Amino acid sequence: MKSRVFKERTSLKTAKDLFLNSIIPLNKTNILRVEECQGRITSKDIISDMNVPHYNRAAMDGYAVKAENITSASISSPIMLTLSDKISNSTCVRVHTGSKIPDGADAVVMVEDTEQKGSLVEFFTKVHPGKNVGHIGEDIRIGDIIVNANHLLRGCDLATIASCGIEEIEVYEKPNVAIIPTGNELVKRSKQSPPPGKISETNSLMVGAYVEKWGGHPLYSDIIVDDPLLIEKEIKKNIDADLIVVCGGTSVGERDYVPTVLDKIGTLLVHGIGISPGKPTALGSFNDIPVICLPGYPAAGLITLFEFAAPAIKKLSHIKEPNSFYKQEATLQHKITSKIGYVTYTRVKLDGNKAIPLMTSGAGIMSTVTQADGFVKIGENIEGINEGDTVEVFLIE
Amino acid sequence: MKSRVFKERTSLKTAKDLFLNSIIPLNKTNILRVEECQGRITSKDIISDMNVPHYNRAAMDGYAVKAENITSASISSPIMLTLSDKISNSTCVRVHTGSKIPDGADAVVMVEDTEQKGSLVEFFTKVHPGKNVGHIGEDIRIGDIIVNANHLLRGCDLATIASCGIEEIEVYEKPNVAIIPTGNELVKRSKQSPPPGKISETNSLMVGAYVEKWGGHPLYSDIIVDDPLLIEKEIKKNIDADLIVVCGGTSVGERDYVPTVLDKIGTLLVHGIGISPGKPTALGSFNDIPVICLPGYPAAGLITLFEFAAPAIKKLSHIKEPNSFYKQEATLQHKITSKIGYVTYTRVKLDGNKAIPLMTSGAGIMSTVTQADGFVKIGENIEGINEGDTVEVFLIE
Repeated sequence: MKSRVFKERTSLKTAKDLFLNSIIPLNKTNILRVEECQGRITSKDIISDMNVPHYNRAAMDGYAVKAENITSASISSPIMLTLSDKISNSTCVRVHTGSKIPDGADAVVMVEDTEQKGSLVEFFTKVHPGKNVGHIGEDIRIGDIIVNANHLLRGCDLATIASCGIEEIEVYEKPNVAIIPTGNELVKRSKQSPPPGKISETNSLMVGAYVEKWGGHPLYSDIIVDDPLLIEKEIKKNIDADLIVVCGGTSVGERDYVPTVLDKIGTLLVHGIGISPGKPTALGSFNDIPVICLPGYPAAGLITLFEFAAPAIKKLSHIKEPNSFYKQEATLQHKITSKIGYVTYTRVKLDGNKAIPLMTSGAGIMSTVTQADGFVKIGENIEGINEGDTVEVFLIE
Repeated sequence: MKSRVFKERTSLKTAKDLFLNSIIPLNKTNILRVEECQGRITSKDIISDMNVPHYNRAAMDGYAVKAENITSASISSPIMLTLSDKISNSTCVRVHTGSKIPDGADAVVMVEDTEQKGSLVEFFTKVHPGKNVGHIGEDIRIGDIIVNANHLLRGCDLATIASCGIEEIEVYEKPNVAIIPTGNELVKRSKQSPPPGKISETNSLMVGAYVEKWGGHPLYSDIIVDDPLLIEKEIKKNIDADLIVVCGGTSVGERDYVPTVLDKIGTLLVHGIGISPGKPTALGSFNDIPVICLPGYPAAGLITLFEFAAPAIKKLSHIKEPNSFYKQEATLQHKITSKIGYVTYTRVKLDGNKAIPLMTSGAGIMSTVTQADGFVKIGENIEGINEGDTVEVFLIE
């Protein structure tokens, strides 16, 4: 077995490019009812087989007419037509917004421009043919693409699709994400305080919550002790997963076997990334399944999740911009410093447009993550950011 | 029955203030398992009854020592201690990141600063007491607030809470949102094209999807025809809802009864808002339940949903900033115009940092909503925005 040292320190950008370029979007699909499709991604163009509207409809409340019969109408010289249920040169028909335009009519005069007197209606204005009429197919025609393939379906899209008579949609399957917690120090979560030297395993809870949020389906493994053969066996057990996240055992200590195992059974692309916290992160693949080795410290693991797991899940899912974060501009309230050569993530609390940096003393401290609304990312060639500077805050979802 | 005219045209800001100020956050709570709590809101402060860490732990792989025994250690003059499982003045103990610091030890020397020679260890550096030791309660102490009441729970929060031995969390119940579609023209959704003059009811699909996305629980009514007594009956049937959304029948036509019914049985705060599309929106309450009357045209209804339903659901849920949208800056690619006196929402497609306005010809057109990534909001006193200007795009979720 190779000696356990970081391969090298890879820059965030290089690590991300290498890893994301190795990921191929999934091809498995499901057919779901339209009401189940919010947040899912279309696997093919959705084509309308209906016109919308599917009949010529009134766009206003008023009277349908043949426009040529009231060309001389004005306020001073109104034209009278007889109220009817059929259109002729001397009749008009009452319509409501959405009503079918009766045969022979080509325009609707708004009720405000008319006065009804018994069975007669006075028109105070002329109209052009087509006025206040929504024509067949004006919104969507038979054969039109309603939404393209690889489109993230939103509530408004579902309504449009259903308006075209489509009740089932083919969408990509959610990526299955195996989550493998490792570490001799870990015990299963419980209400009891673990014995000294032991801690509750909570990383898989965090990873699973984000996997669901980003559109994946979490598959939870039991805790695996720091034993290379057991780690190897557990990774191999997840041969059907679409992404594997191994938590812990990524550093260069005596008990940190995860990157070495990955190097043995698959491809270790990167071990040691220029991010702080998160340096021990490793990335690679096993049997063409992308693998993320997450540092065991949860504050470091969180950064790795946002930088690598989020875009990986989104790319597997065919989401167009897998790298996008929700961001907000704010004014930094205290100077923050960073480590040259590392992209540094400083936790901040937001107060309106103010970003207040939170004091941290290491990747092991979770209380400040919980207090934080987001991170300020300081570039690897920047020494720090001054009080009063405008910063982009990456919001912690 | 009063005549059906808009009460007045209320500005967006006034309408929003009036409506949101009338909403009281809900007090019903649920106790859920921690893994079910992502996106839920805490109903009280969550207090730790555990220290984190709950023992003095090694922050590094290395050797635990009593610092005073190696005060003279240096590279040129290392100090030797005997490897043991107990600490004395002449011994050290091997520890791994996360190990319990043995009794009597007060510091950890990193493995990189030592050399093991059989049962002896050479120390090349001195350390201060406390070095590389995570002390009991350093992260969280018994009695500390882990997260405050009214906190939206994220994946990272769940992990921290579970680390403190907490397995159940009291959260606010999701608001129940009744959705009532109205209109003589509506038929239940199906694969068949409805007869001319009829359209499929899809607004409740759209509203329900957004209600779920914003943290509410949708309750669906059947289609109600344009009959004031039936509308009244259906609203009254939803006396246990926390918010009522009535779709359609909000304008001032002969068949638009919804605002009039609300005025009769409850409070009509606003009818007619300076937004385009969305002018016919009405807002009020029935039996202290907030009521939103959504225009029937889906593109207008969408605006009303984002401007009124989203913040209403979020305020009912105790979310701190109910009015926040996801936004992105972009450069406008064509001039857009607007209507003085109305906040105008122009649909745009994003292409990187470019915002491309989409042509629309009315609130009835849904195809351009489906193509749009977001809206540019043009203020009511602004006539338009020029090509090349930087705009904020409100993203359509």
